[in-house]
Order: sequence, then structure tokens, then C-alpha cells
Amino acid sequence: MSKQPLAPPSGSRDFLPREALFRDGVLSRVKAAFALHGFSPIDTPAFERIETLSGKYGEESEKLIFKILKRGDKAASGEADLALRYDLTVPTMRMYAHRRGDLPRIVKRYQIGPVWRADRPGRGRFREFYQCDVDIIGSASRLADIEILLALSAALRALDLTGFTIRLNSRHVIGGMLDGYGVPPEKARAVTVALDKFDKIGADGVAAELTAGGLPAAIVQPLAKDIADPAFDEIVRERLKDSEAGQAGLAEVDEILARARPLLDGAQIRFDPILARGLDYYTGPIFEFFAEGGAGSIAGGGRYDDLAGMFLKDSVPVCGGSLGIERIMMLLSESDIGEEPAATVYVTVWDADAAPDALRMATALRGAGVSVDLDLEGGRIGKQMKAADARGCRFALIQGPDEKQSGAVVIKEMASGAQHTVPEAEAAATVARLMESD
Amino acid sequence: MSKQPLAPPSGSRDFLPREALFRDGVLSRVKAAFALHGFSPIDTPAFERIETLSGKYGEESEKLIFKILKRGDKAASGEADLALRYDLTVPTMRMYAHRRGDLPRIVKRYQIGPVWRADRPGRGRFREFYQCDVDIIGSASRLADIEILLALSAALRALDLTGFTIRLNSRHVIGGMLDGYGVPPEKARAVTVALDKFDKIGADGVAAELTAGGLPAAIVQPLAKDIADPAFDEIVRERLKDSEAGQAGLAEVDEILARARPLLDGAQIRFDPILARGLDYYTGPIFEFFAEGGAGSIAGGGRYDDLAGMFLKDSVPVCGGSLGIERIMMLLSESDIGEEPAATVYVTVWDADAAPDALRMATALRGAGVSVDLDLEGGRIGKQMKAADARGCRFALIQGPDEKQSGAVVIKEMASGAQHTVPEAEAAATVARLMESD
Repeated sequence: MSKQPLAPPSGSRDFLPREALFRDGVLSRVKAAFALHGFSPIDTPAFERIETLSGKYGEESEKLIFKILKRGDKAASGEADLALRYDLTVPTMRMYAHRRGDLPRIVKRYQIGPVWRADRPGRGRFREFYQCDVDIIGSASRLADIEILLALSAALRALDLTGFTIRLNSRHVIGGMLDGYGVPPEKARAVTVALDKFDKIGADGVAAELTAGGLPAAIVQPLAKDIADPAFDEIVRERLKDSEAGQAGLAEVDEILARARPLLDGAQIRFDPILARGLDYYTGPIFEFFAEGGAGSIAGGGRYDDLAGMFLKDSVPVCGGSLGIERIMMLLSESDIGEEPAATVYVTVWDADAAPDALRMATALRGAGVSVDLDLEGGRIGKQMKAADARGCRFALIQGPDEKQSGAVVIKEMASGAQHTVPEAEAAATVARLMESD
Repeated sequence: MSKQPLAPPSGSRDFLPREALFRDGVLSRVKAAFALHGFSPIDTPAFERIETLSGKYGEESEKLIFKILKRGDKAASGEADLALRYDLTVPTMRMYAHRRGDLPRIVKRYQIGPVWRADRPGRGRFREFYQCDVDIIGSASRLADIEILLALSAALRALDLTGFTIRLNSRHVIGGMLDGYGVPPEKARAVTVALDKFDKIGADGVAAELTAGGLPAAIVQPLAKDIADPAFDEIVRERLKDSEAGQAGLAEVDEILARARPLLDGAQIRFDPILARGLDYYTGPIFEFFAEGGAGSIAGGGRYDDLAGMFLKDSVPVCGGSLGIERIMMLLSESDIGEEPAATVYVTVWDADAAPDALRMATALRGAGVSVDLDLEGGRIGKQMKAADARGCRFALIQGPDEKQSGAVVIKEMASGAQHTVPEAEAAATVARLMESD
């Protein structure tokens, strides 16, 4: 007998019925929220040509791409020509560049699916995990940025995640701010990355990192002092008074704050000049959603108008965001989304001769939209009742010889044990009535 | 600028919104039909260890498995350790063996997802394609076989594919029949494969293939004569009179015919002794669904009680089937499943100052469950109307300065041009009323 390991490969997961129903339930709420906001699904293949992904994610990330060996005689070369997608953004941009002529000028798309990264697996960190992106391609309107915020907010509310806080910034604010503190352009990226760690390492940690990075005390000290100030956003506004880029960024931020704030239904939104989110990628407003109670970032995004340039000659305005759907599913795992049992009614089979009757009754119930598990255990009704219980069915349907003679069935409520004898033709209606009265 | 090809890799596909909505629509109808029959979803990773897939599909198929290069320093070796799943059955059996203790004794599962095969791509043949399996693991009951037939039939009916024909056979019938014609056991597999081609190559073609395979004329001639007879099923029944295996097989077939026939709602089911479906895999009843009008096989399956033995020491009774979901989607592609536009109402934006009003109205409609596209084009209302039309929205919502003053909005029906001026607070109810009266 085989001694091979039966667990799924490292960093990947099997989904048992309960887990698969939970994930399906979460994702269908998210999809419904996106659809309400006028977004449609798109999909791309699991793999792309290696060239499509190369040079898009940085050197460290590139090592984490799963590469697929050439097929047939070429497999012996040990060379790869395809790779599993590393995110959904690059494949979407590839597809947009390819099919632009078949698409409307403004594309509002969402894409939800697995991506693969050969990261070291750990708690909550997988090699196969879902991403959940929502983007507007082709619009430079500030309304598009707001629509992304609203769609993500609605998706979180649909999952009963309310009371989150959105932190908002703009790439132009960061640019003006670094300029204002005298950070030389070649250090801008390193300083931004250090500032982004403020939540984790505090002002002293940021200062240490900046000093280690070769920044003089004349820049580090005022910056570290200011970021520790609870009114840092006001300090930044003051510092940016004479910065053209900074003023443009503040205008973006203020417009989004003013427009979105009245529509967020209990959630908060605030300007956070430290928020950075990978400076070399974004070109305008950026944002991140934080769950209530310190569970960390659950969504994020921004405007990235130059990304389509990977595959196209012209620049296309794009803004978008993604839900941290794996983290969100961990936060929700105690909730009951999608955990209904597979079937409402367990149809028992009195004896072998009763199989045609049981099949007829099961088919009639299903035809009326009632989900049915038909007994496959056989044996005494008591044993079948235990099976009905184990499968989580709310009702069992029994037709013994007496009932059959009179064209009746017994509907038993599993929780209370209450029994209702009704004509067979009224079984579905009775189940519906009992479910309503619950 | 990049000169890399922008098309998806050979044999894979991008799904634009219309195509993705269509696929989602088809799959959700199928899932609902399976759920009505008491089946729950499961999922397994896209990749498995190479050992898990090796030796499971035969030598020719093994060449078509996509293999994944080892990561990090080991990539240079050119060796692969993982492979993309080639079907859903083997991964399910691997998972069942691994998690048996966490699962009920009888598992009713469906799994719908992509598999990957490095086949030569062609019309309707892809390297990344969906499979759609439904199985009952752990029951030897004949009712389980019937439940699979009913679940598949219901899924097809849910897609408006009615009038199909189910051809039914049993592995035991085939065994007894070959014995009855004097086919030596070592030729049984080759003869079965040849018989299975009868629909395509006719009795003469089968005879030629059998002769080429070294079968003597004394066997080939009566067999070829009989299979050409429209009453071949009756001939087989006669021939099997003294075969124990044959009688057992006929009893299986007849029980399923008698039980399923009254429940098939317009579809046909008949005994077809030529139907083979890979003899070395199945151990009992086998079946195949054929669409009306000669569009070929659209579903198939059977009982395969020994397959879990790949990963387990004991034999586990399993029966199941799969929908040929890619072929079915090709048959349906002219229908309108899932092709609704993304949004019902297009909310126009009168001018830049009206953006907060437009956002408020869009949010209110969405809150009432009406899907909304908010205009991102800007410019004159006429241009915005064209965008509403292009996006397929049924209604446009307009609030000019006069309406704003009186707290009203205009709801325009895009198809007829009819306009309704109503208080802003009644916009959602008005849209709902207009949709109902359509």
C-alpha cells in the first residue's frame, strides 16, 4: 500500500464541505456587493508566460514565483516557460492590453481567485491563497476613487464587518512632505518604507532606521519628532503650504474625505500622511482599511495610472483596491456565513420495497425547491434518524405501511421531535410552513 | 515598449465580463441543483505532489501533466516536485484518505474547478478547463447510483437542457457479454474499447479493428452482426442467460431503469450494452448522457468501488458522475444565462458640483438593493445617456437644478425613453415598480 503523504502540498489546503461552504458564502456576499456597485467579474488563466510576470514584482518576489516545466521532449531541458500567477493585477493588465478593443472605454471589473507564491508557509500565510480585487480601468475621475472605497466598504458591511477605519493619503502628499523635510530624492523610497513601519516600530524605530540609512540628524530629528505628534496631519498640512505637489495631494485627499465621509454608514475615514503602500506603484490617492479592535489591515488600494504601461504604449488611468480576503475569512471564521447543512429534509426509506416511494417523495420535494438528503444507510428507521441528525437536517420524512395505505407521510422536526402527519402531496408546503414559523 | 505576446498562453482563455458572468451563471445553477440533492462543495489545491498523480492516468495521459519546478536553489536542478491537477477525482480520493476521520461515513460532495492538461489545443479543447464532478463516497446502495443520475439530470434541466437520453450499462454486463462471445480475457479491454467506438465507426469499423487486433473471425463475425442489430440489447439479454456476472449486471441495470425512469421528467433512459467508459476504472453501473439533436455526450459516470484503494488499504464504495461542463457551455452559448448587465440604474452627474448628490442617490439605491453604475465620463447629460445605453442599464437617473430644488429626480426608461419625475426618496421604489410592470 502507498506510503506517500496524504496531506495537501506544503502551504496549500483542502476545503472540506463546511470550509468550502463558508468560503463560497463569503465570496458570494462580496460579489453581490461589487455587482450592486456596477462591477462585473473577469477571469484570467492560472498560468501566464514567464515573460509576462518577469520584472514586475521586484527581485525578492520573483524568487517566489512557481514556474512550470516545458512539456514533452523539452521537459528534459529543465526549463520553464509558464508560471502560476503571482497576483491578479498583472494578468488583468495583460488581458486589458490584449482585449482593449473588445472592452468598453471604462472597465469596472472584479476578479476573485487563487494566486500562488512560494513563500515560507506559516500561520495565516499560504502558498495558494485567494485574492479579491476590484478596479476601474480607464477613468481619471475622482469619483472613480470614491466608488472603489464605497464598493470595498459595502463588501465589508455585507460580511458584517462594520466600524472599520479607512486611512487615506496621496502619493503627492508623500512627495511634497519628503521634499519639505529636505529628504533627497534618491532617499525618498527608503524613507517612505521606514515611515510606513511607524505603527509597528514607533518614532524611535523609524529614526533608527533612517539614521542607519545614512540620513543626517538634521532631517531625522524633526521628522521623528513630528510623526510622534498626534496632530502630525496638521503639521504636514502646514509644511505643505508652499509645495505644489503637496497642495495637489491635499486637494485629492480632502475631496475624497468630504465626499465619502457622509456615505460610510458608521465607518471612519481619516487623513494619514504616514500611510505609504509601495510608493513606486501608486500615482495618486492611496488608502488602507483597518478592522475594529486592532485586527490590522483588511483592505487597501489606490490609483496606479502607469501600470498598464507594462503592456501598452499609452498610459491608462486605473484605480482599484483589494480585500484581504484570507485575513477577513480568519476574522469571520466564528460566524455562521454559509454553514447551512446541505439538506433541509432527510427522506427515510422504510424498507427495500419502499425505495420507489422514497425516490418519488424526494424528487417531489426537490422539485418544490426543498433540498433533500435521501437515506443511503438502510436498516431500521431509528438508525436512519441518527443519520438525519448527524447530517444536520431539520426535518425527517417517514412513510411506513400505514401512512402509505392512506397516502400520508410523517414529517418529524428533528430539534423538537414534533411530528406532523399530512397527505403526501402537502409535504413540501408543510415543510415550508414549518420553516417560516420558526 | 514590450513586444511580448499579450494573448493568454496556448490553450488557456481570458474571460471578459460577459463570458465570466455567463460561466458564473451556469455554475450557480448547477450548484443549486446539486445542493437540492444534498451535495456539498469541497475543494482541493490546484497542485498536488507529483507522486500523488503518477501512475494514476496511464502512460499517454501522464505526459500531459503540467509539472512545477522546484523552488529556490533547487530550481537549477530542473526537477519538478509538484504538478497541476489533471482531474478532480484523484485529488478528492487523496483528500478523502487524508481526512476520512473528519468526514461523515457517507460523503456527498461536488467539486467544480479548473484542471490542466497539456493536450494539443483545438476547437473546444483547452489546456485549462473546468470539470464538474458529483460523487457519493461510502455507500454501496443502488439508491446512490440513482441519486447521482437524478442530480446530474436536475443540473441539466436547470440549464434548460431537457430531452436528453441516458444510456446505461454495467461493467458486469460487459464482462458477461465478452465471455458469452468467447473473447479471451486478455483481449477484453481492447474489444471493449473497439465496441465503444460503434457510434463513430459502425459495425464494419468495429469488426476491422477487432480483426486487426488479432481476434479470430469466429468471434468477430457474430459480434459485428449482433451489434448492428437494433435489438442488440435483447440479444445480449438472451446471451447472458447462463452468465452469473451477466445476470448480476442486468439486475443492476434493470433496477436503475425501473427506479429512475418515472422521475426523469421528459428525459429518456435506456440499456445500451455497448457503452463502455474505460473498463479498468469502473466496477458496476456506468452511464452517459447524450444531448438532444446529436450534440454528443454531455455527462457520464458510474460506480468505481476500488479507486480509493490508490490511497487507502480498504476498498470504499464510490459512485459519481461529471457534467461535460465545457461542452455544455458551448451548447448554451446562445442562451442568456447570466448575461444581465452589471447595473440596473445609471446615475448621471449633472455637473461637478452635483457629485455629492449623485453619490448620495447612488448609495441610497444600492442600499435598497438596486445595482448602480455612477457616471465617470462627466460632460453633458447627452453624452452620459450614451454611456448608460452602452453599459446596458435599464434606467438612467437625472437630477438637474430644477429637480434638485424640489427634491425630485427624473427616472428615464432607456428602452422606451419614458420619463418619470418622482421625489428623490421614492427613486428605489419607483425603479422596483417599473421593473415589475415590465
